Parts: sequence; C-alpha cells; structure tokens
Amino acid sequence: MKIAVLPGDGIGTEIVAEAIRVLDALDLSFEMETALVGGAAYEAHGHPLPEATLKLAKEADAVLFGAVGDWKYDKLDRPLRPEQAILGLRKNLGLFANFRPAICYEQLVGASSLKPELIAGLDILIIRELTGDIYFGQPRGRRTAVDGHFPGADEAFDTMRYSRPEVERIARVAFEAARKRSKRVTSVDKANVLETFQFWKDIVTEVHKDYPDIELDHMYVDNAAMQLVKAPKKFDVIVTGNMFGDILSDEAAMLTGSIGMLPSASLNSSNQGLYEPSHGSAPDIAGKGVANPLATILSAAMMLRFSLNQAEAADRIESAVKHVLASGLRTGDIWSEGTKRVGTREMGDAVVAAI
Amino acid sequence: MKIAVLPGDGIGTEIVAEAIRVLDALDLSFEMETALVGGAAYEAHGHPLPEATLKLAKEADAVLFGAVGDWKYDKLDRPLRPEQAILGLRKNLGLFANFRPAICYEQLVGASSLKPELIAGLDILIIRELTGDIYFGQPRGRRTAVDGHFPGADEAFDTMRYSRPEVERIARVAFEAARKRSKRVTSVDKANVLETFQFWKDIVTEVHKDYPDIELDHMYVDNAAMQLVKAPKKFDVIVTGNMFGDILSDEAAMLTGSIGMLPSASLNSSNQGLYEPSHGSAPDIAGKGVANPLATILSAAMMLRFSLNQAEAADRIESAVKHVLASGLRTGDIWSEGTKRVGTREMGDAVVAAI
Ligand SMILES: CC(C)[C@H](C(=O)O)[C@@H](O)C(=O)O
Ligand SMILES: CC(C)[C@H](C(=O)O)[C@@H](O)C(=O)O
Repeated sequence: MKIAVLPGDGIGTEIVAEAIRVLDALDLSFEMETALVGGAAYEAHGHPLPEATLKLAKEADAVLFGAVGDWKYDKLDRPLRPEQAILGLRKNLGLFANFRPAICYEQLVGASSLKPELIAGLDILIIRELTGDIYFGQPRGRRTAVDGHFPGADEAFDTMRYSRPEVERIARVAFEAARKRSKRVTSVDKANVLETFQFWKDIVTEVHKDYPDIELDHMYVDNAAMQLVKAPKKFDVIVTGNMFGDILSDEAAMLTGSIGMLPSASLNSSNQGLYEPSHGSAPDIAGKGVANPLATILSAAMMLRFSLNQAEAADRIESAVKHVLASGLRTGDIWSEGTKRVGTREMGDAVVAAI
Repeated sequence: MKIAVLPGDGIGTEIVAEAIRVLDALDLSFEMETALVGGAAYEAHGHPLPEATLKLAKEADAVLFGAVGDWKYDKLDRPLRPEQAILGLRKNLGLFANFRPAICYEQLVGASSLKPELIAGLDILIIRELTGDIYFGQPRGRRTAVDGHFPGADEAFDTMRYSRPEVERIARVAFEAARKRSKRVTSVDKANVLETFQFWKDIVTEVHKDYPDIELDHMYVDNAAMQLVKAPKKFDVIVTGNMFGDILSDEAAMLTGSIGMLPSASLNSSNQGLYEPSHGSAPDIAGKGVANPLATILSAAMMLRFSLNQAEAADRIESAVKHVLASGLRTGDIWSEGTKRVGTREMGDAVVAAI
C-alpha cells in the first residue's frame, strides 16, 4: 500500500506531520512518499502541480493532502495558483465522489454559532460531485456578446453541465452511503431554473428505483441553504453537484463551529482517494504550531477505511480522537473556558498516546 | 402613480390584502390595479404570466407582488410553472437590481437559530444581480456530450455569463447603496474557478475606482456562506451574481430567524420596481388567516421609497411596524412566550392603527 503525502502550504506541513505520526503509531506497513504541491511546488518548480507530484499521486493508493494557498499567490495567472493543484488532482485522478461529513462533537457544541439544542448531535454527510458541473465544463472564456442585454459588449462565460452517467454514479454513491446510515437522502438541485439540475433531479429519481429501502427527497439549493440554518439535524445524507456542494458543505461545516475537526474524502471508481481536512491553509497562523491537526488526523482515518481497507485501524484513530477531546485538550480554534489549550504537536502527541 | 397588484398563490392574497389596507391608510393617491399571476393565472388563463398581467406590470410604476407556487404545479412543464412568472417579470421589466435586506429586529432576536450575541442588531443588505448569470444565459438544454468524462452520453447544460455593462451597473448600485450606509461592500465571487466571476471581480475592482470613499473586499462564495454563519455582523453590503445571490440571500434571511419580516425590492434602471416578501407562498397555511403580513407591508414601504418617491410615507409604515412589534403582537411564525399571538388580519389592523 502506498500513500502519497502532499502537505502543501500554510499550516499544511504542520498538520500533516501529526497525521503521519498517528499513522506510524498504528504499526501497519505502508510506503509513504512526500511531494510538493500548491504554492510550495510553484516556488520550487514553477507549477502548483508538477508532473512528478501528479505521477506520485496517480500511482499511490491514497493521497494524504494538507492544504494549499496563500494571499501572496493571488496575483498569479489562474493556471499557476495553488488551488489549481487540487482541481488538477481531482480531474486527473477522476475523484468524482467527495464525502464531507458535518459532525458536531458533543464536547464542542459550544463552539457553534447555533443554539446548542439545534446543533448537538449533528451528523450530516454531504456527498458532493467533484469532477463535473461548471467547474470543468467547456466552453468557457471571454468573448463578445451576441445576444443578451448588451449585444456587442465584452462578456465572460462558463458552461454548467452534467451527463447521465455522471449523475447516475454519484446518486448510487449517495444511496449506498445512506444504506449504512439512516436511509434518507436529500438531493439538492435548482430544477426550477436550470436545465442541468432538472436533468439531475430526473436521473436521481430514476436511480432511486433501485433503492426502494431509501427515502429520497428533493430540495432547491436556496431552500437547502435555509434549512441547514433552521434545522440542520433534519438532514442525513445530502447529495448535490460540484458548485452547490462547494457552498453547502462549507456552510454545514461552519454550522458545527469546529471546522478544525472535519475531514473529507474524495474517491474515484476504484476507491483510490484523496483525503484532506475541510479547512484551508490558514496562512495567518502557519508555522506557529497552533493549528488543529485533528481534521487531518481524521482524514487519515477515512483514508484507512475507504482506500486502504483498514477499517479497524480507522476506528482506533477515531476513538483516540474522542478520547483526547474527552480528556479536555483543545487547540485554540476549539478552546473554551475550563479546557486545556494545547498546540499542534501536543495534540498529535495526545492522539498518539491514546492509540 | 400606478401600482400593479399581483397577489399570486397561497398566502399571497391574504398578505397583499393587508399591505393594501396599510397603503390606503396613508391617504396618498395612487391608482391600483390587480391581476392574476402564478398558479392562479395558470388556472384561469393557462399561463402563469398572462399577456394582460405583463402589460399591466410594464405600465405601472411599481408592482406589489405576493408569492407564487404550490406543490400541485410541480408536474407541469417548466414554462407553465408558477415561478416562471417571477422570472418573466424580472426579465421583461429589466429588474436587474435586487435588494434583499437581512435585518434582525431587536424583539425577535430569540427567533434566530443563532446565539443572540451573534445576531442581535444584524443589518445586512444583499444586492443580487437579477437578470443575468446562469438564470438566463443561452445556450441551455439537452444534447449528446462530445467531450468530458462520457462522450456520447446524454447531457444537460446551462450557460453562466456576465457582460461588462451588467457587472458595472450592479457594482454602481452596490457602491451607491453603501454610501448611504457604513461604506463597506463585499463582492462575492468564485474567481478561483469561474471565468465569469474572475471577470466580475475585475470589473467590480475597476468600478470601485470611482468610489474611493467606499471600502471594497472580495470573498469567495463558499467562504461567504461560512462567514455568514460565523459572524454575520461583519458584513454590511454584499453584492453578488444571480445564482450566488439566490443562495446567500436566503441563508442570510434565515439567519435572522424571522423571514416573515423581510421585504425585497427589484429595480430596473428607471426605478420601476417589483416589491415582494422574501418568503414564499406557504401553501400549507394558505387561507387560514395566520400568515405574517409584515414582510409584504414592509415591501410596500420599500416601494414607496424607491419607486414612488414617498420616503416619508415609507418611514411612517416602518415606524408603525416597529411600534406594533414593541406592543407585543406576533403572528405564529415569530411568536414566543410572553407575546400575544395574532392572525394576519389583526396584524394588519394593528399596523393601520399605528399609522
Ligand atoms: C480551492 C477551491 C478550488 C475548492 C473548490 O471550490 O472546490 C475549495 O473551495 C474546496 O471546496 O475544496
Ligand atoms: C422561484 C425562483 C425561480 C426564485 C429564484 O431562484 O430566483 C426564488 O428562489 C427567488 O429567490 O426569488
């Protein structure tokens, strides 16, 4: 089993280092190989996703990814910016199924913006399609408008699109996932306005016929953004497209108040996957040793479960994290009165000790 | 001055009736003419936006709109569904500037999902572009994929697009609005992924040169969805495209906990406008006399201010609403222990009395 380790930028190196220590503590045997990605790769090789990094990722069974990005790259041409690395990995590895759990840990209820009774016990799984939609649709670019409100003016455009097999496979992923949970799926669309999402809705409804044990409902994206605020616990599995999933998964993550705890997995059809925390590279606290490594550590657990067939080891990590939380250790992002504030390294130490 | 009154479906008739009583109580002279729209128009004339209704709306100085939609029309072909009426009115009247305030009234802080300290005093203005973007972009439809992951498969597609003058004019609207407020604008885009929104960001930045007194920042839409949950009061004016605005304005409205209080205005370049509550047609409570008419009454106030040049009358309505809230009257949606529950009509009576 081979893991490609791509720490990236900002706090990426610090948090990935702790996840690796946790993996090491499990005494399993994997090969791990590290490579540069994002701004770090751009600095060294002039490209955020160098050939060698992509090759390593493709050949590995799983990619453990930190985070990429920094304000200082904002002025670069788009193809050279750090976040292109993540888009390039998704596309080249065919990572179409993004799992983004939004879980509110019992001890961290107070960190949420929401009233405790609305958020305590939250456990949603957002399944976001990750290689289609307006993220990758062609054509896109700039041109002279030929119709619309201002024919003759300069305009920019992008293409939203989904093909039948793309929707079918992500719908199946969602129904299968729901089978292992509370058997409810909410498909989020904008079928009242968009052809793409009327098509999406029709296909999800068709695929649902193969899953009579699962309850399916459909919700417009604007309503979903509202219902997540109003009563997040009414959701179980949410499945949606790439663009809507980007927005809703971040909204749901922030509702928990502890985005520093939330892992993610992006899988292709052979269960090869990329695993990364749901938060970003946080350049403001990079190098200070204060970042929360738990989302990355929990991403490593997802990696063991989904790509490396080591469910038991995954359970061990997850139990260790719960144990550490229960013992009262907190990094700054989740700290509250009466708990003990620790740094990145100490948090990693504690998880290793609990394993 | 002529007002086209389009009550629509569901609770639309009840809430618009109260807004009209409030307008009548002001003793101003307008001509009002009512017409069918949405499902009601479809039942009577086979189309959600009949020619006569559109003609009336076009000729009026302002449109007072209730709400449209009902589950029972879900099976109709898209062009016949109630919500096409609202899209048709926006397009035909050129209502490109949508003002969606998200205000949390002092007395209603408790109705929010958010902790009181995060929401008390919230006063955000979301300015959503309303006639461009992927809502109206051509081409759109179904076809056989020629590239992408599954060439040869059926696919559906839509076109996202913005032209330079479209972005310029909505940016100016936002900067002008900010001048009357706290002089800060956040432009929300997805420039890291979409050509359309890199263009948007570039143009907003250019137009900003004409408004050196206004502070401008840029935020990605996924981050905006998070920051609205984390610290909504950090925002003042948000300007964004049609699709992102649809999602974020609903999220922000729900954060207040009292969407039954939130009006909206959609204006064209000659200040002709459509005014409607931010909430929907609520078919489940239609005809029961329990709907909250305040969002519609406050929409009538916006109408007086923006389209009918009657700022003073608008102030009178807004003061009357505050007075009624202070007196403890509440419809069911905003009711809490210790306040008095009233119906739609009684709430209207109270506002009329306060005027
Ligand atoms: C960095 C960006 C391109 C990316 C996305 O939009 O998908 C990020 O927001 C995410 O959700 O992983
Ligand atoms: C009904 C629908 C077409 C509409 C929209 O998406 O614009 C609604 O959600 C709104 O925000 O007014």
